Amino acid sequence: MYKTAILGAAGYAGIELLRVLKRHRQIEVTVITSDTFKNKKLHEVYPEFRGYYDLSFETADIDQILNRCEVAFLALPAEASMTSAEKFVKAGKIVVDLSGAFRLKERELYKTWYKLDHRSPDLLKTAVYGLPELFREEISASRFVSNPGCYPTGILLGLAPVVERKLISLSPVIIDAKSGISGKGRKADVSSLFCELNENMYPYKAGTHQHTPEIEQMVCRIGKVKKAEIVFVPQVVPLDRGILANMYCTLEKDPDIAELAELFREFYQNEPFVRVLEPGVTPQVKAVARTNFCDIGLAKIGRTLVIMTAIDNMVKGAAGQAIQNFNIMTGIPEEEGLK
Amino acid sequence: MYKTAILGAAGYAGIELLRVLKRHRQIEVTVITSDTFKNKKLHEVYPEFRGYYDLSFETADIDQILNRCEVAFLALPAEASMTSAEKFVKAGKIVVDLSGAFRLKERELYKTWYKLDHRSPDLLKTAVYGLPELFREEISASRFVSNPGCYPTGILLGLAPVVERKLISLSPVIIDAKSGISGKGRKADVSSLFCELNENMYPYKAGTHQHTPEIEQMVCRIGKVKKAEIVFVPQVVPLDRGILANMYCTLEKDPDIAELAELFREFYQNEPFVRVLEPGVTPQVKAVARTNFCDIGLAKIGRTLVIMTAIDNMVKGAAGQAIQNFNIMTGIPEEEGLK
Amino acid sequence: MYKTAILGAAGYAGIELLRVLKRHRQIEVTVITSDTFKNKKLHEVYPEFRGYYDLSFETADIDQILNRCEVAFLALPAEASMTSAEKFVKAGKIVVDLSGAFRLKERELYKTWYKLDHRSPDLLKTAVYGLPELFREEISASRFVSNPGCYPTGILLGLAPVVERKLISLSPVIIDAKSGISGKGRKADVSSLFCELNENMYPYKAGTHQHTPEIEQMVCRIGKVKKAEIVFVPQVVPLDRGILANMYCTLEKDPDIAELAELFREFYQNEPFVRVLEPGVTPQVKAVARTNFCDIGLAKIGRTLVIMTAIDNMVKGAAGQAIQNFNIMTGIPEEEGLK
Amino acid sequence: MYKTAILGAAGYAGIELLRVLKRHRQIEVTVITSDTFKNKKLHEVYPEFRGYYDLSFETADIDQILNRCEVAFLALPAEASMTSAEKFVKAGKIVVDLSGAFRLKERELYKTWYKLDHRSPDLLKTAVYGLPELFREEISASRFVSNPGCYPTGILLGLAPVVERKLISLSPVIIDAKSGISGKGRKADVSSLFCELNENMYPYKAGTHQHTPEIEQMVCRIGKVKKAEIVFVPQVVPLDRGILANMYCTLEKDPDIAELAELFREFYQNEPFVRVLEPGVTPQVKAVARTNFCDIGLAKIGRTLVIMTAIDNMVKGAAGQAIQNFNIMTGIPEEEGLK
Repeated sequence: MYKTAILGAAGYAGIELLRVLKRHRQIEVTVITSDTFKNKKLHEVYPEFRGYYDLSFETADIDQILNRCEVAFLALPAEASMTSAEKFVKAGKIVVDLSGAFRLKERELYKTWYKLDHRSPDLLKTAVYGLPELFREEISASRFVSNPGCYPTGILLGLAPVVERKLISLSPVIIDAKSGISGKGRKADVSSLFCELNENMYPYKAGTHQHTPEIEQMVCRIGKVKKAEIVFVPQVVPLDRGILANMYCTLEKDPDIAELAELFREFYQNEPFVRVLEPGVTPQVKAVARTNFCDIGLAKIGRTLVIMTAIDNMVKGAAGQAIQNFNIMTGIPEEEGLK
Repeated sequence: MYKTAILGAAGYAGIELLRVLKRHRQIEVTVITSDTFKNKKLHEVYPEFRGYYDLSFETADIDQILNRCEVAFLALPAEASMTSAEKFVKAGKIVVDLSGAFRLKERELYKTWYKLDHRSPDLLKTAVYGLPELFREEISASRFVSNPGCYPTGILLGLAPVVERKLISLSPVIIDAKSGISGKGRKADVSSLFCELNENMYPYKAGTHQHTPEIEQMVCRIGKVKKAEIVFVPQVVPLDRGILANMYCTLEKDPDIAELAELFREFYQNEPFVRVLEPGVTPQVKAVARTNFCDIGLAKIGRTLVIMTAIDNMVKGAAGQAIQNFNIMTGIPEEEGLK
Repeated sequence: MYKTAILGAAGYAGIELLRVLKRHRQIEVTVITSDTFKNKKLHEVYPEFRGYYDLSFETADIDQILNRCEVAFLALPAEASMTSAEKFVKAGKIVVDLSGAFRLKERELYKTWYKLDHRSPDLLKTAVYGLPELFREEISASRFVSNPGCYPTGILLGLAPVVERKLISLSPVIIDAKSGISGKGRKADVSSLFCELNENMYPYKAGTHQHTPEIEQMVCRIGKVKKAEIVFVPQVVPLDRGILANMYCTLEKDPDIAELAELFREFYQNEPFVRVLEPGVTPQVKAVARTNFCDIGLAKIGRTLVIMTAIDNMVKGAAGQAIQNFNIMTGIPEEEGLK
Repeated sequence: MYKTAILGAAGYAGIELLRVLKRHRQIEVTVITSDTFKNKKLHEVYPEFRGYYDLSFETADIDQILNRCEVAFLALPAEASMTSAEKFVKAGKIVVDLSGAFRLKERELYKTWYKLDHRSPDLLKTAVYGLPELFREEISASRFVSNPGCYPTGILLGLAPVVERKLISLSPVIIDAKSGISGKGRKADVSSLFCELNENMYPYKAGTHQHTPEIEQMVCRIGKVKKAEIVFVPQVVPLDRGILANMYCTLEKDPDIAELAELFREFYQNEPFVRVLEPGVTPQVKAVARTNFCDIGLAKIGRTLVIMTAIDNMVKGAAGQAIQNFNIMTGIPEEEGLK
């Protein structure tokens, strides 16, 4: 049993960790932090946990926490992670950071896209990008993993096979993604109120979303190229959870859809959490909700390949993938707690 | 007062006509048809109309109806419209057909995309495509208008300025659209049940939706070109009404976003139902719900122009636009009943 | 045209006033206030109003506002109304207060139920309770109306016929009500976030809701009795708007359901905004959404009469009723702007 | 491993069984039936099961099924269960019937409330009512359990402590319940379409719902009385799953709320699936969603005790409770697969 701390446990990603960990047989949650709910019992804030955990929130005093855990999941805002991660990493703990704080390799990008001056730039090299389907070996050799963003997870899993094989043009790749509301986090913000979002949908941060450079960086790495042009438009849709991402790719050659489908099936043939659908079948958010799956559908329209992926943004896009990474880092079977 | 028949009045588009017409001062609804609800009072089926209309549904026996109306709105399935429209047109009635039956000019396309052998091919030439912002003159000179599809309405209004000015490549234009559930119609179909769609979203008919040739035909006409390649992927999202469409266009030259915004503002400067938003502002479905507006937002990402439009699929995408067309055909002020 | 100020115009009730007033032919909105959005254009905050109003929010400096309006709708929190109302009333303006600040006649009740020390206790006598179906004459003679609470509106309209005729026991009357989320207001509160309420429902303030003494006071007045025992349990359900209230009443005698239905029909026969449904037909929130109607359904189970009412909490339960009151106060036809 | 058949596996209750059974370590599903989807793979109809089960639907030919299962869960309409159950029971299989077919003891009641002439009246005596918290011993001695209705489950768990202790009047007990849409089943019915129910809510079958005699029968049995008067009004609310039931009970004496809460805590102290909340805390549907819990909240208003319960209608109200019953019948730990 790994003693485990969850920092930022009262946010949606933190809570999802607790939800998934109810079934994990090798993790014992020993610390949960939340400044807002300090000293409150978990089930007073989230009644669904009544009878599952006997835990109270505490403030994130890391020196106090260090000797009570071997593992730390950081479900904090990027700025808070930048400072908190360092102490856990230096103390040799197993760390999975769920924020964006350690996903980008170039410090300068944090100024541009996160409006933050990075406080632990040295750790940017140490952190391993935790997308298991592509970087499993690195993850298994690491003790500090940066969990991918919710949007990049589904997008990169969709793009990887054709980017790696250099089948598509990268100037540009057009990505239209739709996310459930939990992606906005559990902040008291008027724009996240029920009546603002119910019966509504809209694009936001078109071309300016902070996941853009993350997608670009990883596409370059997967395709072993210097430059990729990412046109990324996210939108908000009125459901709790789920991301649907459509990637519109210009094919360099003209393979038929059956060949393309076969390529995807092969690429992911041993992956427990990727399901490649038959051509003509499209992915549905409801089919992946509350699971760690990424479903991939394909359509070819003229010379455009449309890759459609669905994930649960809170599971494969956050807590589930974090646990998948933890399992890999510790040699526990990868599906533990996740199937 | 124009005596008016609504055929297929119990479907969502028919009902929306009745909703909008409550406020129209020059239309008197005299006939509503529905085979399913024959002889039932309108308010027994739709309690919201209690106190507004004293009408009962009857079967669509057109010979019986002809002499009781001067105007007919056909809110029927395409196949039914193909046969019904002819009688009204021949009798000299003012006709607005809301189905797809008369939108395409080439008879052959109906076989491919609608799986129908067209029964009134001669009328395909007669029917005027009822997108007022682009074809107002033709509409005003006509007595038989084919109302545009819900998807094409927002898509064509978004594309028209740059297609007409030849600012973008047409090979291809990538269109990612999301629709509320009312677009599926009021059919007893398991796939339209609340529990199948709530907390769900998914793409469907990627590249095979019957609105594709309609968009293609009209883009060609607007751009005065022979060929346009349309990559069209619609998806279903869990809300009642609203369509959000994103058009991803490769700019032929490199105008800045301010110039592009100015172009759109000029293009629609006299239009009562098109609102061009400032760059950086994105359209919201909630802002156009229950209105006849089309809101247009713009973003430029590299050389890709993203045109984002929002309409209410039941109003500007169906009933509202039908009434706008009727107003134009009869010389009634265009906004009557709609603002 | 009455020059009109709306105080608290950026809250849900204020916005609903603006929505309904788009169609009112005798009101010109000249002032809208909001501290949060001071100096912002209305359509920047609520894009749906683009093209309808050319107004900017200002702070609620009443001395500045007094000479720019003849009418004031106060859509403020109760505490703010307590101080603001006085100035408008003293200046002889027509005032409709939408808060709870002037609904209760006994000052002491404000301490118990609103946790407020009332700042304008003298006005409690002046304010007329604005439920037009029951107090139309008083309203028409008044210049200061206190608009009923959203819950009490539907509940009192349901109870009035049998309370007035003394057909039911008042010890107790059991009331189970369900409200859409807009009733929670437009406050940045975690408990009002989409993900907290979507796919959720729960009772709250069982027996302690501040509308309880309002219902009790008015039942006593309608029934001309000293005491009534109200068991009131409200709950939150995941939709934007609408209140469904069930009143479980013990019948003193044993009239059959047809007699009871007839009583209700007679009681409301001249009312433009009350629709009594046939026995066996139950009211639906969707049938009254965005209207000023109250629909009433009846069932008799043993000796228990179940009175079921549906209203739109933002229209008949707030903005619509406020305008109905205004119309009555000024002698404008009661349905102006509302049908 | 128990070989298990699920009849009616494509309906919502059947699917929920498959969902819950993914985690049950002693059940192997060997047969799933559905006339509609005969020969289709499970994951073609419900893509969420891709990778979990390798099963195809077959028609419900019971003679064909009998020797391929030791256990049968019947998730069929009542009429179908009436005939199917008998063969399984006679063959000595372990049977849990999820329909209403065997819940009532008196054959005559089926005519009145289900409009059905019961085809296996002899089995009415054999069937054990499967509410484990009240009838665990009987269930453990039985091989044929009739699973309680979704409404009665939460209602009876709420009422049992005070009915057994004779603390409340039974003439009448007022019950106001609200259910998510999955309770309507997976039938192609216009009244179950997304656009009919989204943003809507309404009471239905007030006083005439078929669960009324079930509640009455069991209240009589629990209270050891001959007669109880049940006033039961269900309503539909727009969410997938969850039932909230409020029971308004007239207390015979005047215990304080703390005593009442203590009574409930004691009554359920050893129950793994009942959580009694502190007075002042109300149950939430979201806290029990996808769990087998029943949460109970209490309020006292004058002499009225309000008992509020929340369950997931598909789990504790159907599939979860069925599996709980199965576990008890076979001596498997009661929580297996359910926590």
